[in-house]
Amino acid sequence: MSPIDLLQPQTSFATTRAKLEDLRSLLTAHQLDAYLIPSADEHLNEYLPEAKQHRIWATGFTGSRGDLLLGRDLAWLFVDSRYYEQAELEVDPTLIQIVKVGLEGQKTLEETLEDLGREANQHGKEFRLGFDPFTLAVSQYREFQKQIEPCGVVLVPLRENLVETVRSLPLWSETEPFPGFANSKLFYLPETLTGETPEQKLDRVREAMEKKNVQILPVTKLDQIAWLFNLRGWDVPYNPVFIAYAIITRQQAFLFTNPERIEPAIQQRLRSCVTLLPYEAYADHLRSLLAQAVSCRVLLDPKRSTLGTYQILKDHPSRPKILEADSPIEGMKACKNAVELAQMQQANLKASRAKIRTLKWLSGQLAKGNSVTEADVAATVERFYAAEEGFQGLSFNTIAGAGANSSIVHYGTPNPQRYLSPGELLLLDSGAQYASGTTDDTRTVIIGEPTAEQIERYTEVLKAHINCAMQRFPKGTTGAQLDGITRATLWQAGLDYGHGTGHGVGAFLNVHEGPNGISKLVNKPLEPGMVTSIEPGFYEPGWGGIRVENLYVVKDLTEFQPEGSAPSKVIWYGFEPLTYIPFDQRLIDLNRLSDRQREWLQAYHQAVVEKLAPTLNETEAQWLQAACVLQ
Amino acid sequence: MSPIDLLQPQTSFATTRAKLEDLRSLLTAHQLDAYLIPSADEHLNEYLPEAKQHRIWATGFTGSRGDLLLGRDLAWLFVDSRYYEQAELEVDPTLIQIVKVGLEGQKTLEETLEDLGREANQHGKEFRLGFDPFTLAVSQYREFQKQIEPCGVVLVPLRENLVETVRSLPLWSETEPFPGFANSKLFYLPETLTGETPEQKLDRVREAMEKKNVQILPVTKLDQIAWLFNLRGWDVPYNPVFIAYAIITRQQAFLFTNPERIEPAIQQRLRSCVTLLPYEAYADHLRSLLAQAVSCRVLLDPKRSTLGTYQILKDHPSRPKILEADSPIEGMKACKNAVELAQMQQANLKASRAKIRTLKWLSGQLAKGNSVTEADVAATVERFYAAEEGFQGLSFNTIAGAGANSSIVHYGTPNPQRYLSPGELLLLDSGAQYASGTTDDTRTVIIGEPTAEQIERYTEVLKAHINCAMQRFPKGTTGAQLDGITRATLWQAGLDYGHGTGHGVGAFLNVHEGPNGISKLVNKPLEPGMVTSIEPGFYEPGWGGIRVENLYVVKDLTEFQPEGSAPSKVIWYGFEPLTYIPFDQRLIDLNRLSDRQREWLQAYHQAVVEKLAPTLNETEAQWLQAACVLQ
Repeated sequence: MSPIDLLQPQTSFATTRAKLEDLRSLLTAHQLDAYLIPSADEHLNEYLPEAKQHRIWATGFTGSRGDLLLGRDLAWLFVDSRYYEQAELEVDPTLIQIVKVGLEGQKTLEETLEDLGREANQHGKEFRLGFDPFTLAVSQYREFQKQIEPCGVVLVPLRENLVETVRSLPLWSETEPFPGFANSKLFYLPETLTGETPEQKLDRVREAMEKKNVQILPVTKLDQIAWLFNLRGWDVPYNPVFIAYAIITRQQAFLFTNPERIEPAIQQRLRSCVTLLPYEAYADHLRSLLAQAVSCRVLLDPKRSTLGTYQILKDHPSRPKILEADSPIEGMKACKNAVELAQMQQANLKASRAKIRTLKWLSGQLAKGNSVTEADVAATVERFYAAEEGFQGLSFNTIAGAGANSSIVHYGTPNPQRYLSPGELLLLDSGAQYASGTTDDTRTVIIGEPTAEQIERYTEVLKAHINCAMQRFPKGTTGAQLDGITRATLWQAGLDYGHGTGHGVGAFLNVHEGPNGISKLVNKPLEPGMVTSIEPGFYEPGWGGIRVENLYVVKDLTEFQPEGSAPSKVIWYGFEPLTYIPFDQRLIDLNRLSDRQREWLQAYHQAVVEKLAPTLNETEAQWLQAACVLQ
Repeated sequence: MSPIDLLQPQTSFATTRAKLEDLRSLLTAHQLDAYLIPSADEHLNEYLPEAKQHRIWATGFTGSRGDLLLGRDLAWLFVDSRYYEQAELEVDPTLIQIVKVGLEGQKTLEETLEDLGREANQHGKEFRLGFDPFTLAVSQYREFQKQIEPCGVVLVPLRENLVETVRSLPLWSETEPFPGFANSKLFYLPETLTGETPEQKLDRVREAMEKKNVQILPVTKLDQIAWLFNLRGWDVPYNPVFIAYAIITRQQAFLFTNPERIEPAIQQRLRSCVTLLPYEAYADHLRSLLAQAVSCRVLLDPKRSTLGTYQILKDHPSRPKILEADSPIEGMKACKNAVELAQMQQANLKASRAKIRTLKWLSGQLAKGNSVTEADVAATVERFYAAEEGFQGLSFNTIAGAGANSSIVHYGTPNPQRYLSPGELLLLDSGAQYASGTTDDTRTVIIGEPTAEQIERYTEVLKAHINCAMQRFPKGTTGAQLDGITRATLWQAGLDYGHGTGHGVGAFLNVHEGPNGISKLVNKPLEPGMVTSIEPGFYEPGWGGIRVENLYVVKDLTEFQPEGSAPSKVIWYGFEPLTYIPFDQRLIDLNRLSDRQREWLQAYHQAVVEKLAPTLNETEAQWLQAACVLQ
């Protein structure tokens, strides 16, 4: 789980007013009726470096998601339920209208633009919407074309980013110096961690390019670049990536980032397979490669590339053919090799141990009658993560919500004043980055004694988790099918949850990665080696929330032969856990579980003890054993 | 269920040879390396009128699906598993290579073209593939562009259909006179059957057009046209549609078909809302509408329209804007109104009664020791269908397969020499058209005594059916999610089936209709009023097959409040059966069913008795009651 707040000193409302005024003068200069400032940058990453946080700079709103639509007179900030409160705290409503998307009567960005377009049309005018083409995915742009252009909105991609223009004005560059590009030192992961050299990966990518008969593959996603060259960096929070572009051709590879941040030894290591160039050289170099090639074919991933890169191709005089398709790198990265899987297992055992210790610590504190806050819980699990060997940081901001806060799906601000009280649920969703792998898990526990309703709902969520975790499925099964399987019994009990069931997880990379996932939107089949979370839940504002999350790897169950059935040619897959943490017994009504579900739970708890008890001290091991005996 | 053979007198191999020679001379004239003759026509319908059966005419192969790729020297006919045998019987392998798509080592059309493209490229040439743009959906063409163009195939849409050209040569038009356009009399359905006038439907379509800001909507799907104007015809087998185009504008509507086939009274009825024009006027009229409009916007459904219509728009000098989206008519047609639902209920009760009588007849014949063939069973159910009031015809060809034949998913040739033997499964998948509605159901029964394995597998398929049928699901749930839910327990038992779980069904229209369906490919949500089949199965070549199919309508369960749960804002949907036929008790192991599944089955059998016993004679009613008591 997880998005995130990048909390910063709050800019004053007066500063925001001045910034918006400067931006509006550029609107006039460009004959625009509005300018769109989304939270995305050139790489469509979940987290941005400070230099790319244009929406935060312009509005003072520090949430990780939220788009600003700046009109000539009005401005709208579109935020989702995670940020309803935070936006109100950080934004002056006389300057910017906060639109709480998801609430009754609140229009989305697209709907607002539709209205503005229609209104302008009624006055015989068009509504010109400016935006930076490097902040919009090609697929998003296409949706805009379908949905808002028909209503009279003219989409105007601009060469300059208006926020960058204003930020570089003397007034602003003096008072709020431009932070410059992220500049963390890059590090190279040895094959003992990655299992494959960049050369081998490039060979596979080129094989896929040859099959599709493309000569050029621009790579704009940061985790794809990090994976491809076995490089990592810390340019943004939580994701061990670095700001860069890459271009792969059939003979060459180019990596565009500040070469000074790469030590000579690493430069030497990479020299034979990739040419290092400055970040700023990307667009011109892409153009020069296009100019060299005759009737060139370029592969562009429309979901994962910006309109900016698309326009470089489209506008080039050599008129390259653009093949729109998923980048082959995305699928290769998702299917972990044996070395990566062994590393992921190790990393998740470490994170499991840290969470077990946290749960034991919590039960000890409560038993002693000590007061514990949400922030104490978050600090404790983070301390235990950091104590494990190879700790590199968190994989997202720790979510530790008690009582009503547990119903806020992305509650990212554990409160040092919020004490846990008896009868409350505590939802603890957290993860860490280790040099060997990425982790993510959630446990929901009861403080004190549970009510019958808490037990009933928790048990239903746990059943949903188990149903997905123990499901065998044939090759070709999609995330949407498994999403339905996970929800079926919950639905029969009248319960549901508003988020997906699972997301892909990288190997010491992003905690959210594609192309696999378990949700009704995912029609990609699951393949052996893919890592996914399974995290059904239930949330009711005021009442609280439940989420039960483990990571799993997709395994080929070649040895599986169903009892009494004829041999079939079906290839069966299943899930193997990476996470080993007991579920809170006090919340489980074993009578609501089928025999099969009970067997799964029993075997899982037994595996938790087997894998982790030997690595714990005696009192910890005793606590774990007790937590794992199903009563 | 269903596709179909249009069996015709078999053309001699010599005739085919001559036809292919004539076609090949046109290949040379057009500088083509190959010409594609798919089984589709301008309307992408499942069934074609004789005049459009180009592939059948050219090859002598009468299967309902199968594409011919005609090269200069070689030719390939691509058929799926339904037609492996039939193609061998009907096609001379020295003239046309039969490609059995789905078998190991057999390449698909696309893969074959990829190879041909690469081969030509290796010799420094391009491979020019000609085709009639009116026989290819826009979305299929796009896939071709993505998949086979990169391999060096040049796609050459031709103005003329080469088969039509050859067919009109004196030699051929004399020996095999062109059948002319289908010419069945059209009939108008009163509002007592449709619940909505064409005027009301056009209002709704125009509302959707206004929302999308489009001025012109070409309608090329036959069932959409039939639904929109409350007209039906019998131009093709099984689907009560007629060959036509339509164009809807904000003020006008045009129906292109032979006006002579519409009686004056119907013409009079429709005069106020639609202008009748000859079928052949479609393209020119579309062009003239485009010419009249300034900066016109046209809605085109790329999955359901041919490249031919797309090209008319794309090539028009007025340069209309093309909005590619699902046609609004598709969704409107799928959500049946109260009148249509009442009619569908009546029709399906009739079909259920016919099948119950067939099953009773069968058990009586077997009890008396009479010999029964597959063809006897098919003839009997068809006789009972025809005896019901308002019978219009079958909704697809009856599938009656015994023993190993039951594993052939679309076994469409019930055999008058194939006698049913004890121990065999009999799969009977059939349906009828009544003036009130369309039906489709499947029952699998055992002849004599079942084996433990037959019982086990049948019970698992029945459980899959029940799991889907009794599932409650929230608004927004997709067909892919429900597909997973249906298969979950089957997969745990090591079983699966290779087709989708369900398809949409029209109201006295096509037995297969979109946009809804239950399969991993369907990301459309199910909406109240949609009708769907639920038809899980299991097939093992040689052993036999099982399929259990009912039709259901999606209902809004507003009154549903889960026990003990807080009121939630979730809107819950569920399925209500349209089909009422008992399942074969001898094949059910009640011990493998959960309490909930047993309850569903009990309630369903009880409903069968309540709804149908009062309409049967005494011995029939007694038989039904006995069949419905679960033992």
